[in-house]
Amino acid sequence: MTDPHPTVGLDDTVHQRSRLGILALLRSGVGIEFASIRNELHLTDGNLNRHLKVLEDAAFISSRRETGRGRPRTWVTITAAGQAALEQELAALRALIAAAE
Amino acid sequence: MTDPHPTVGLDDTVHQRSRLGILALLRSGVGIEFASIRNELHLTDGNLNRHLKVLEDAAFISSRRETGRGRPRTWVTITAAGQAALEQELAALRALIAAAE
Repeated sequence: MTDPHPTVGLDDTVHQRSRLGILALLRSGVGIEFASIRNELHLTDGNLNRHLKVLEDAAFISSRRETGRGRPRTWVTITAAGQAALEQELAALRALIAAAE
Repeated sequence: MTDPHPTVGLDDTVHQRSRLGILALLRSGVGIEFASIRNELHLTDGNLNRHLKVLEDAAFISSRRETGRGRPRTWVTITAAGQAALEQELAALRALIAAAE
């Protein structure tokens, strides 16, 4: 038996382009504001909301709405499960790249 | 201006998990038989056909059906455009991994 191809284990919850970007940005564990993620990844509000919903349903991120003076802000943070899923994705990508070299 | 995030330039035609696997398998330029790709990537016939159609429409692969004695076989080969698209994807993934380290 040889190992399965590195792409076989990839999970679309994490591998999908924008969600991979979101998790990579959040990787350090520091919370990031919704608008910063949206701008960094060139997404629309609707698009980012949709991807955050998928990640939140998978328990890979949590978000917190901050109201007070000025406009409300939403802060997004990666969870431990999200960090583990991202590490697994990055390991598969490293294996893919190594196999291609 | 800082560079855009590495995931911003990813193209789903190539980034999608199974299609990334297909192109990575074909990368050397040697044609591979349909059944070998299907088995290697744990896909069904229908699934692989669907992904090959997307890649063929993008002119990233070509396929050739070989008939003769025994069962017909379909051979799949990456094109120069497909190789270029795969290299661009791998470069973006390398940048993503480098940023995460």
